[in-house]
Amino acid sequence: MTDVAHDADLQGLYDDFAGAHLMPLWTQIDDLMPEHPEPAAQPYHWAWSTLLPLAERAGELVPVGRGGERRAIALANPGLAGRPFATTTLWAAIQYLGVGEVAPAHRHAQGAFRFVVDGEGVWTVVNGDPVAMCAGDLLLTPSMFWHGHHHAGDRAMAWLDGLDIPLVQKLDAAFFEYGDDGIEDKSTPDRSRSEQLWAYPGRRPLSALDARPNSPLMAYRWADTDASLSAQLELEDEGHPGVCEPGHAAIRFTNPTTGGDALATLRTEMHRLRPGTVTSKRRTAGSAVWQVFRGRGTADVAGHRFSLAQGDLVTVPSWASLRFEAETRLDLFTFNDHRIFECLNLDRQEILEAGSR
Amino acid sequence: MTDVAHDADLQGLYDDFAGAHLMPLWTQIDDLMPEHPEPAAQPYHWAWSTLLPLAERAGELVPVGRGGERRAIALANPGLAGRPFATTTLWAAIQYLGVGEVAPAHRHAQGAFRFVVDGEGVWTVVNGDPVAMCAGDLLLTPSMFWHGHHHAGDRAMAWLDGLDIPLVQKLDAAFFEYGDDGIEDKSTPDRSRSEQLWAYPGRRPLSALDARPNSPLMAYRWADTDASLSAQLELEDEGHPGVCEPGHAAIRFTNPTTGGDALATLRTEMHRLRPGTVTSKRRTAGSAVWQVFRGRGTADVAGHRFSLAQGDLVTVPSWASLRFEAETRLDLFTFNDHRIFECLNLDRQEILEAGSR
Amino acid sequence: MTDVAHDADLQGLYDDFAGAHLMPLWTQIDDLMPEHPEPAAQPYHWAWSTLLPLAERAGELVPVGRGGERRAIALANPGLAGRPFATTTLWAAIQYLGVGEVAPAHRHAQGAFRFVVDGEGVWTVVNGDPVAMCAGDLLLTPSMFWHGHHHAGDRAMAWLDGLDIPLVQKLDAAFFEYGDDGIEDKSTPDRSRSEQLWAYPGRRPLSALDARPNSPLMAYRWADTDASLSAQLELEDEGHPGVCEPGHAAIRFTNPTTGGDALATLRTEMHRLRPGTVTSKRRTAGSAVWQVFRGRGTADVAGHRFSLAQGDLVTVPSWASLRFEAETRLDLFTFNDHRIFECLNLDRQEILEAGSR
Amino acid sequence: MTDVAHDADLQGLYDDFAGAHLMPLWTQIDDLMPEHPEPAAQPYHWAWSTLLPLAERAGELVPVGRGGERRAIALANPGLAGRPFATTTLWAAIQYLGVGEVAPAHRHAQGAFRFVVDGEGVWTVVNGDPVAMCAGDLLLTPSMFWHGHHHAGDRAMAWLDGLDIPLVQKLDAAFFEYGDDGIEDKSTPDRSRSEQLWAYPGRRPLSALDARPNSPLMAYRWADTDASLSAQLELEDEGHPGVCEPGHAAIRFTNPTTGGDALATLRTEMHRLRPGTVTSKRRTAGSAVWQVFRGRGTADVAGHRFSLAQGDLVTVPSWASLRFEAETRLDLFTFNDHRIFECLNLDRQEILEAGSR
Repeated sequence: MTDVAHDADLQGLYDDFAGAHLMPLWTQIDDLMPEHPEPAAQPYHWAWSTLLPLAERAGELVPVGRGGERRAIALANPGLAGRPFATTTLWAAIQYLGVGEVAPAHRHAQGAFRFVVDGEGVWTVVNGDPVAMCAGDLLLTPSMFWHGHHHAGDRAMAWLDGLDIPLVQKLDAAFFEYGDDGIEDKSTPDRSRSEQLWAYPGRRPLSALDARPNSPLMAYRWADTDASLSAQLELEDEGHPGVCEPGHAAIRFTNPTTGGDALATLRTEMHRLRPGTVTSKRRTAGSAVWQVFRGRGTADVAGHRFSLAQGDLVTVPSWASLRFEAETRLDLFTFNDHRIFECLNLDRQEILEAGSR
Repeated sequence: MTDVAHDADLQGLYDDFAGAHLMPLWTQIDDLMPEHPEPAAQPYHWAWSTLLPLAERAGELVPVGRGGERRAIALANPGLAGRPFATTTLWAAIQYLGVGEVAPAHRHAQGAFRFVVDGEGVWTVVNGDPVAMCAGDLLLTPSMFWHGHHHAGDRAMAWLDGLDIPLVQKLDAAFFEYGDDGIEDKSTPDRSRSEQLWAYPGRRPLSALDARPNSPLMAYRWADTDASLSAQLELEDEGHPGVCEPGHAAIRFTNPTTGGDALATLRTEMHRLRPGTVTSKRRTAGSAVWQVFRGRGTADVAGHRFSLAQGDLVTVPSWASLRFEAETRLDLFTFNDHRIFECLNLDRQEILEAGSR
Repeated sequence: MTDVAHDADLQGLYDDFAGAHLMPLWTQIDDLMPEHPEPAAQPYHWAWSTLLPLAERAGELVPVGRGGERRAIALANPGLAGRPFATTTLWAAIQYLGVGEVAPAHRHAQGAFRFVVDGEGVWTVVNGDPVAMCAGDLLLTPSMFWHGHHHAGDRAMAWLDGLDIPLVQKLDAAFFEYGDDGIEDKSTPDRSRSEQLWAYPGRRPLSALDARPNSPLMAYRWADTDASLSAQLELEDEGHPGVCEPGHAAIRFTNPTTGGDALATLRTEMHRLRPGTVTSKRRTAGSAVWQVFRGRGTADVAGHRFSLAQGDLVTVPSWASLRFEAETRLDLFTFNDHRIFECLNLDRQEILEAGSR
Repeated sequence: MTDVAHDADLQGLYDDFAGAHLMPLWTQIDDLMPEHPEPAAQPYHWAWSTLLPLAERAGELVPVGRGGERRAIALANPGLAGRPFATTTLWAAIQYLGVGEVAPAHRHAQGAFRFVVDGEGVWTVVNGDPVAMCAGDLLLTPSMFWHGHHHAGDRAMAWLDGLDIPLVQKLDAAFFEYGDDGIEDKSTPDRSRSEQLWAYPGRRPLSALDARPNSPLMAYRWADTDASLSAQLELEDEGHPGVCEPGHAAIRFTNPTTGGDALATLRTEMHRLRPGTVTSKRRTAGSAVWQVFRGRGTADVAGHRFSLAQGDLVTVPSWASLRFEAETRLDLFTFNDHRIFECLNLDRQEILEAGSR
C-alpha cells in the first residue's frame, strides 16, 4: 500500500471512528496519560486587601437569600478557564454576611467548612444546632447536613468557605435540597451542642459509639488550635518530639470517632512557623489552598514567589513544589484533597529540599 | 439608588471580580450545585458488530508500539464533548492485538483491567508475571504495576480495556513511566504466578499477610466466575438465599487480602440473568459501563432502550435509572466508580421498581 | 454384654484415657460448656473506709522498692480461690505511696491505668514523661510502656490501679522488665508531654499520624471528664440527645488515633447519675469493676444490694445483672473487659428492665 | 520498732488483708508478673496409634446423643492439672462417629472447627447446611452456629475437633443451646451451600457484602489446600517468591469477607515441608496445637523432641521454641490463639535460629 493510500485509509478509519463515537488512544496518549500531573490550575495568590473591599461592595449591592443562597465570592483559578474553582477539586470563597442578615437553610452532598480569618457575631445553624463563628475557628458542615447562617453581631463579617464543589461536579455526585427560608433557631449560645458532646479530648459519649464518615464535632475553636500549636513549639524548645520539622508545628483536624480526617472529602490543617523558619520544599499529588491566619512571610509555589499577609490565599496545584518562609510567626490554615488520593491509593509525595530554621 | 445606578454598580463589581479572578456563587449556584446529578455523559450503546470491524481495520492500518503504546479504541460518550471517555470517570476501549504483536511495557497511576469477550492467545505480563488472557477472564493491572502484552496465538484478538483515566485526569493524579520496548518474559504458562499464590478460596500465603490496596490476584478466570453464578441460580432453584434478586445472580470481584474491591478505583462485577428476568429498576450515584458477555436482551437506561447482543457496550451516567430484561440467559460484565463514592461518603442508591422473573 | 461387664470395660477405657492424657467430653460437658456464663467470681463490695486504713498501715510497715515493686493491695474476689483477682480477667488494687517515696521503673505486657479517688502530689513517669496524678484523673500506662512513680507532695496518696493481670496470666502472655531503680526525671510539670501533643479535641499532630493500639494520651484530666458529663446532663435538661439513658450521663475514654478504647485490653468509662436516678438493669458478657468517685447510692449486682460511698469498689461478674440507684449525684468510674469480648465476637448484652428518673 | 514487733504487726496486717478479701502484690509479683510466659501447659505428644484405638473402644462402649452430645476425647495437657485442655486456651479432641450415628444439633459461643485426618462419610449440618467431611478438609462451625453431625458412610470415622473452650471458660463467655435431637437435613450433597456461595476465589456474592466476624465459607477442601501448597513449592523451584522460608510452604485459612482469620478466636493454617527441610526455630507468645496430616518427621518443642507420624498431635505452649524437621514430605495442620494476641496487642515472636533445606 502506498503512503498516500494508507493515509487515506487511515483518515477513513478515523472518520468512521468519529461516526461511531470512538476515539483512538494512540493519537492522544500523551495528553491523557502524562508522565506526571500537568494541572491546568495555576499557582496563584489572592490578597485579602483586594478580597475584603470587593466583598464589602457585594454586601452593599447584592442581597443574600433564597435563590442565590449565599453571598460567596469564589476564587477562580486563572488556569481553570473561567470556572469558579480554586483548584481542580477545591472550591474556596469569601462569604460575607451583614449585621442582621440571614443565609437560608439548605443542604447538599458537597462537604463544607468555614474558617474565620477575622470577626465574630455569626452563627451557623447545623442540623438545628447553632454554632458560633469566631476568628480562628474551623466550623464544619458535612455532606447532607442542613445549615444556614445568621448575623447577630454588630459588624459585618467575612470568612473563608471551603467546599469540594469541583470534585463533586466532576464525579456527578451532587444533590441539593432547600430548607426553611429562615433559621429555625436564632439563639446565640457560646457553645454548640456538638461541642457539648464531643469537644473533650478522648471522651466519647456512650450514647454515640458508632463510627461516622464525618466528624460529629462542628466547631474546632481557635483557643484549642492555638494552644496545640504552641505546645508543639514548647516541646521543641525543650528538645522533645512534636513538631513536624524544625520550627514548624502542625495539626490536622480529625474526626474523634475514627481518628481520621474531620471531613470525608476535605483534609483540613493548621500550621505555625516560627519567625525565620523555612519549611522543606515538597510536592504532593493533589491540590491545596492555603490561607494566612496571622503573620507575614513568603510562599514559593513551583517557583512563583508570593508575599503573604493576613487573610491572603494561595493555590497549590497538584505536584507543584511548595515552600514557606516565615518573616514573623506565621499561622497558616490549609485544606486539600489528599485524603481522596490516599483512599484511592493515588497518593504520592516527594521532599525536594530540607527545611531550615 | 436607582435601578440603573445599581445595575451599573453591580456590573462594575462583576468586572472587578473578573479582574481579581473571582466569581460570585449567587449567579451560578444552580449550575454548580444542582438538585441531583446532571451528568453531561449520556446513556449510549455501542454494538460489538460495529466495534470489531473497526478494530480489525485499525489492526491493518496502525502499528502497535512505543509512542502510541496500545492499539486501543475508546468509547467517546456523545455527551462528553469529544473526549474519549465512556462516562465522567471511566475509560472503556477495545484493544486489538494481532498475531505476534507486542504492546510494550509501561506503568501508570491509572488502574486498569482487561475483560475478554472472545478469543485467546494473548499474554499480559504484569510486573514480570505472564498472565494468559482468555474469553470470560478478568485480568488486572493495578496502579503502577508494569505491564505489556504479546500475542502468542494464531488469531488476532480484541478485548475490553477498563481504566480510570478520566478520574485520574480530573484529579491531576497521573504518573506514567516507560518500560522495556519488548516483553521481558514471553513464556506462555496457563497460570500466572499470582494465581499460584492467590487463586485458592480463603487460603492466604503466610509469606504475604499484609493488606494491599489492590488485589494481588491478577486473573479471575471464567471457569470460576461461571461456576459461581451458576451456583447462585442453583441455590435459588432449591429455595435458598444467594441471588441478589429473583433470577439475577451476581458476584463482585474482590481483593482476597481485604474482602473489598479488586481495584482501588474501579468496581468490577459479573451478572447473570435467567431468560425472561426483568431486573429491578434502580439508580445509583456514580456511573457505569456494562458489556454483554453472552446472550441477548434489553437495557433500559433512563428510558433509552438498547437491544443487546454479545460484546455490546452500554454507558450508565450517574443517577440514570437502569433496568435489564433478559431474552436469553444474559451474562453481563460491568465496571463502575461506586467504590469511590462509598469511600467519599457520596454513595446513594434508589430502587424505583421491583424486578420480576 | 452385661451391665457389669460394660461398666468394667468403661472404667478400663477411662483408665486408659487417663494413662494417655485424654479426657472424655461427654462426662463433663455441662461444666465445660454451660448454658450461660457461670463465673466463679462473685458480686462483692469493698468499702473505702476499710481499704484506706489498711493501705495506711501498709505504708507504715512495708517499704516500696525494687523486688516488691509496688505497695499495691489487690481486691481478691471471694469466689476466686485466694487469687488476687477482682474478676476473672481484671486486677484492681489500691496503691499507696508516701511522701518522698519512689516506686521504681519497670514495664510489662500487662496494660495498666491509675484512677485517683482523692489526693495529689504523685507523678507517674511514663516512658520518661512525668504525668501528674490528681483526684478524678485517669492515667494510662499501656502495655510495655516504662513507668515508675514518685511522690513530690506533702500527704500520702492512695489510688486505684487497674490492670489486665488475670487475663494476661490466663493467656500466658506476660513479659516483664526492670528499669532504673530510681526515676529518671523527677520534675513535676502540671502537664505531661503526652497532653501537650494529644489533649486537644480533634487536633492531631502531623508528626504522629499512625494509628496506635493504645492511646498516646497518658492523662485524662478530671476537669474535662467532669465537664463532659455535666454537658450531657445540660443537653438532657434542654431536651437534646446526649445522655445514654434518662438521668445517666456517661463517657468512654478513647484513643484519639482510632476513636476506639484508650487501652487495648481494658475499657474505661466514667458515669454520672442525677440524684434519684435508677439505671436500667442489664447484664453483659464479661466482667467489670466499679468505683465510686463521688456521691452515695446503691448497686444491685445479681440481686446483691451494696450501699455505696466515696471510694467504694464493686465487682460485677460476667452476665450478672447490674443496676445503680443514685441517692445523691453519683459519679462512678468503671473498667471492664468488654472490648476483648467485642474483638473476639463474644460480646452479648441484655436489658432486663428499663431505668427511671 | 523491733523486728519482732514489726513482724507481728505485718502478720496482723496480712491477716486483716485476708479478712477484707485483699492480697498484697509485693509478696507475689514474681508469680503474677513473670519476666516471660511461664505456662503450666507442657510440650506434649499424642500418637495417633494410641488415640485411634481408644476412640474405637469408646465407639463400642459409649453411645452418642443428647446429654453427652459428642463422642469427643480431649487431649489433657499433663501440665494443666487434670483439665481437658490441650493448651491454656485451646481444646483439641478426637471425635468418633460410627456408621449411622447422629450427634444431635446444638450451638454455643465457643468457636469450633473439624479437621479430618482420614476417612469420609460424615456430614456436619451447619445452620441447616449439610457439609461433607473428607480427609484433609477443614470444616468450620463458628460461634453460635447450629451444628450436628450424622454418618452416612460405611466405615466409622475419627477426626480432630478444635475449639476455644478453655479461652471461653477463662473469660466466662460461654453460652449453649440445645437444638433438635436429630438432624434436620440428612441429605448428603458433595458441596455445601456455603461453598456454592463462597468457594470461588475473589468472587463475592452481591447478596452478601457485609463484613462478618467469621468466615461464611464452612468447608476448606483438601484439593484446594493441597494445590495451594504445591504451587508455592513450584514457585520456589522456579526461583519465585511464595514459600514462607526455604522448603516450607504454608497457607492461612481466611475469611473471604475480610481477608483475616477464618474464625474470630482460632487461627488455622496448613503447612508443607519438603523432605529434609528444617524449619527456623522460633517462639511465639501464645499456644498452638499441631497435627500431622501426612508424612513423617520430628518436632522440637522447647528442647523436647517428638517423632511424628500421621495423625500425631503436639502441643506448643506459649513462648516455647518450635522447630520441625521433615523426614518425608510433611503436611501439618495447626491451630493457635495468635489472632487473639494480635487483637489485644500482646503478640510477640522471636526467631532463634534460621531454617535450612
